[in-house]
Amino acid sequence: MSGKFWLNGRFVEGAQARLDVADRGFTLGDGLFETLAVRNGKTLRVKAHLARLGAGARALCIPVPYDDAALGRALSDTTRMNGVRDGVLRLTLSRGSGARGLAPPEKPSPTVVIAAEAGLPPETPARAIVARTARRDEGSALSRLKSLSYLEEVLARMEARDAGADEALLLNTQGRIADGAASTLFVHLGDWLLTPTIEDGALPGIVRAAAIRELGAVPRALAPEDVHRADEAVLVNSLGVRALVALDGRPIGSGKEGIWCAKLREIAHADE
Amino acid sequence: MSGKFWLNGRFVEGAQARLDVADRGFTLGDGLFETLAVRNGKTLRVKAHLARLGAGARALCIPVPYDDAALGRALSDTTRMNGVRDGVLRLTLSRGSGARGLAPPEKPSPTVVIAAEAGLPPETPARAIVARTARRDEGSALSRLKSLSYLEEVLARMEARDAGADEALLLNTQGRIADGAASTLFVHLGDWLLTPTIEDGALPGIVRAAAIRELGAVPRALAPEDVHRADEAVLVNSLGVRALVALDGRPIGSGKEGIWCAKLREIAHADE
Repeated sequence: MSGKFWLNGRFVEGAQARLDVADRGFTLGDGLFETLAVRNGKTLRVKAHLARLGAGARALCIPVPYDDAALGRALSDTTRMNGVRDGVLRLTLSRGSGARGLAPPEKPSPTVVIAAEAGLPPETPARAIVARTARRDEGSALSRLKSLSYLEEVLARMEARDAGADEALLLNTQGRIADGAASTLFVHLGDWLLTPTIEDGALPGIVRAAAIRELGAVPRALAPEDVHRADEAVLVNSLGVRALVALDGRPIGSGKEGIWCAKLREIAHADE
Repeated sequence: MSGKFWLNGRFVEGAQARLDVADRGFTLGDGLFETLAVRNGKTLRVKAHLARLGAGARALCIPVPYDDAALGRALSDTTRMNGVRDGVLRLTLSRGSGARGLAPPEKPSPTVVIAAEAGLPPETPARAIVARTARRDEGSALSRLKSLSYLEEVLARMEARDAGADEALLLNTQGRIADGAASTLFVHLGDWLLTPTIEDGALPGIVRAAAIRELGAVPRALAPEDVHRADEAVLVNSLGVRALVALDGRPIGSGKEGIWCAKLREIAHADE
C-alpha cells in the first residue's frame, strides 16, 4: 500500500512511514489486524471491526492506545487523506517494540497503523483448492484471532496460486473445513445455508455474523464432500463476495454464480 | 535490542533502524529468524543456523539476498560493531514489502536484519508449566520453521509468566509434548536421554541435533507424565541450558541440576 499512512496518531507519507525493527509485530507476529471495505466513501461496519479488534487485544493483553471513537475518526481521515471512494483500509495493531525474547514488555507501547488503498478486489467467480500444506488448528486460541501471525494462511494461498486457483480452504486437525485462507465459506445444501463453525476453526468473520443473523445461515461441521454436494458455494469476506464455482478442479452446482451469492453480497456491501 | 543494527547490508543506529510499514514480516508474520549465541567473541554454530534459515527460506519460497559467507561476515561484523563478547545475535529474514493481501509479490525484496545484544540469559534452574492456552500443531509445516508467526509461543510464555513459571511446554494436537515455547525439552528416563520428535512438533533445534549426534539422545513420543517420572529434565536452546526442576508445581527428580544438564550445556556452549 502506498499514499498516506496513519501511524500512531500522525499522517506520514508512504516512503517516510517506518517502523522500529524491534517492533514485536515484525519480530514475533505479535499483534492483530482488521481489513475494512470503503464503498461510496463510507467505511463499512466500523463498529463491528473495532469490537473484534478490541476483543482480540484483550485476549492478547495488548492495550489499545486509542478509543473506538478516535480509531473511527482515524479510519475516515485516512480514507479522506488518500482520496479513496471505493477501496480498502487495513488497521494493524502490534504490541510495539520490545526487548529480545518472547516475554512481552511490562508496559507495552503498541503500534497502530492504518493504510488505505483505492479499489476493491474483483467479485468474479472463484476456484479453490483444499490446502494440503497448511491447516488451521481449531484448538488454538489463534484460530479465533485475526493475528499478525498469518503465515499459515500465506502458505495456503501460495498453494492455491501454484495450483492455478484463487483461494485455498483450510482443513482443521479433524479434516473438517475451517475456513478459507482469507474468506469464510458458505454452502447451500438441501434447504440450508451452512458455514463452518467457530469450534472447527472458522475465524469469527464480520459478514459471517451478519449472514447468520440476517439470512439464517447455520454454523455446521463441513467436509470437502459437502462442498462437492452443494448446489451453491460462496466465499465471503469484508471486501466482497465471490461465487465458489469449483473445488479441486470439480465444478460446484451449476458452476455459475447463484442466488445465495447475490444475497450474501447484499449483506457484505451493507453498512449495518 | 539497541546499538547498531545490520539492515540489508548497512549498519544503522538503533533509533534510525526502521522498516517499511508494508513489510510482510510486520503485516503477516511472513518470514523467519535465527537466534545465535556469542561466547568469548565467537558466534556459535553459524553454519548450522544459516543452513536452517536457508532450508526454511526455500520452504517459504523467500529468496535469501545474501549468501552464507556474506551473512557469516555480517554476523561477526554486527558482534564487533556492538562490542559484544558474550551475548546474542538475532537474524531476521522477511519476505519484504508487499501489496495488501496474502499473495506474495512475484519478485520479493526480502528484508534482513541482524541485531546484537550483550549478555546471555541465565542458566539457572527453571520451572515450567504445560501450556493450556497455546499448543503446537504438529501437522502444520510451520511447526518445523522458526517463523515470524510466533504468537502461539508468545501466548504460551505469557501463560507461564502468569503462573510464576519460566517456560511453558506446548502440547501437540494429540496431547503429547512438542516443545518448549523457546526451548527443546530433554528428559532422562530409565537409561535414555529422550527428546520430543519432529513428528510430534518439536522445532528442529541446532543444539537438539548436536545432542542426538553426540550424546545419543533419542527422539521419542513424550507426555507430561514422562516428565514427572524422569530422574532429570533439561531445557535447551542455542542461548543456553537450564535444568527443569519442576513442572506444574511438582518437582522433577532430585529437584536440582543434574549431570545431563551439564553434558547438554557442554554441547550448547561448543561451536561444532
